[in-house]
Amino acid sequence: MSFNARLRQTCAKKNSALCIGLDVDLARLPTGIPATREGVVHFCREIIEATHQFAAAYKPNVAFFESMGMWGLEALEEVRGQIPADVVTIADAKRGDIDSTNVHYAVAVFDVLGFDAVTAHPYLGAESLEPFLSRPDRGVFVLCRTSNPGARDFQDLRNETGERLYITVAKAVQSWNVNDNCGLVTGATYPEELAEVRQVAPYLPLLIPGIGAQGGDLPATVQAAGTAAPMLINASRSILYASNENDFAEAAATAATKLHTDINQALAIAT
Amino acid sequence: MSFNARLRQTCAKKNSALCIGLDVDLARLPTGIPATREGVVHFCREIIEATHQFAAAYKPNVAFFESMGMWGLEALEEVRGQIPADVVTIADAKRGDIDSTNVHYAVAVFDVLGFDAVTAHPYLGAESLEPFLSRPDRGVFVLCRTSNPGARDFQDLRNETGERLYITVAKAVQSWNVNDNCGLVTGATYPEELAEVRQVAPYLPLLIPGIGAQGGDLPATVQAAGTAAPMLINASRSILYASNENDFAEAAATAATKLHTDINQALAIAT
Repeated sequence: MSFNARLRQTCAKKNSALCIGLDVDLARLPTGIPATREGVVHFCREIIEATHQFAAAYKPNVAFFESMGMWGLEALEEVRGQIPADVVTIADAKRGDIDSTNVHYAVAVFDVLGFDAVTAHPYLGAESLEPFLSRPDRGVFVLCRTSNPGARDFQDLRNETGERLYITVAKAVQSWNVNDNCGLVTGATYPEELAEVRQVAPYLPLLIPGIGAQGGDLPATVQAAGTAAPMLINASRSILYASNENDFAEAAATAATKLHTDINQALAIAT
Repeated sequence: MSFNARLRQTCAKKNSALCIGLDVDLARLPTGIPATREGVVHFCREIIEATHQFAAAYKPNVAFFESMGMWGLEALEEVRGQIPADVVTIADAKRGDIDSTNVHYAVAVFDVLGFDAVTAHPYLGAESLEPFLSRPDRGVFVLCRTSNPGARDFQDLRNETGERLYITVAKAVQSWNVNDNCGLVTGATYPEELAEVRQVAPYLPLLIPGIGAQGGDLPATVQAAGTAAPMLINASRSILYASNENDFAEAAATAATKLHTDINQALAIAT
């Protein structure tokens, strides 16, 4: 089964478009959880157990684990193994190099760590991403219009015909989707841009960060993304750190339930 | 001392613009070197000992180590520790995420692994790269015009005024260089584009892959890069795998000496 088919099936079966970002920040672990491999694995296990019934996907942010040192990467491997098989796993690693190097990033993310999908940079072009794109059962979410202020610097540049770079990227990725395994990363902080992306890439799954701590507008985002292809609305900090005390897992469950409900309500009225 | 000042000093002291890329491919280790942590560390130690007198920098390619699994990253840490203090170390990791995530990538690369510099993607803009840019003693080589065929897809797009994206990126990075710690990655496979980049970013160090296995033209490349700011000419496979037998270290030394000489001859006649 192609990655996108599996994603569509997962979102339908679980009646969910919620992606939970595992941005595990040692400085924000709840009281009593030690900043060790065991602490991080325990924290993630509790979060996953408390939230997985509402989630379609988990998206560990690889940077946070790398910054812990070697034991952080061991923790990431262990956390990956804790995620139930009925959700999709995305390594938020923002990789991107030349073809012969991406062969190794693909092995690292898909085979060593066992993730179903990865986030990737478009800057080196289609040919560079072949080692990811040629794996039909693995997904590649290509950065299109990101959720940060600096996104404007290059992504919003207009070409000779007036088309912005992120639209050119969206169209290109649509054309790369021959194996039904491509998606786009489009930030919730810019719903108008998201709607434009959806117009030129109607069939690609969208991975949408920026709801929650970054302040994106959920109903506007869901309306802009539409219902023709799956979207994953990602929240990280607003769920992981919903409480700083030993009720963190219940608080995460409450935050996840509420967001899951809010997304589904927004989807029900979206066209 | 700023990173770029240190790089200028290193290139001058060592009379070298040679960067040796440590793209350690388990499938290409010389006969008798096992595909284990000890094997990889031993291979790199021999390569470094045989070549460091000719090198201004070493650039481990992080993807190759990540694809080995956890022990590969432990090997990378050990290899980093073997590189003498009189050369510059660059983690070729092609990182790039939003600001609050790049904080963690910067810690991982500069503090956990202890590298002097990193390669990074421009796609998320200046604001996103602040966690790297704000460290004057650490360098950031931003991808500008890469050495692969797919580079054309987006990097060559012209904006409304006819300027290509990689030129816009080069100008932007020149403006980000307030801490004297920015450089550009510009492939040797396109000397004409490299010359254009040098025109708009006359003071930035250039990290130039594509000589050797990728077939770039050395004299044309050096002439295009000019002598006003440091360049690092990177070679990986042509040095690491100069011999597949137990004379691999001598063969690497021979290849490194020859390239060092060729670069300096090209520099002597460059204007």
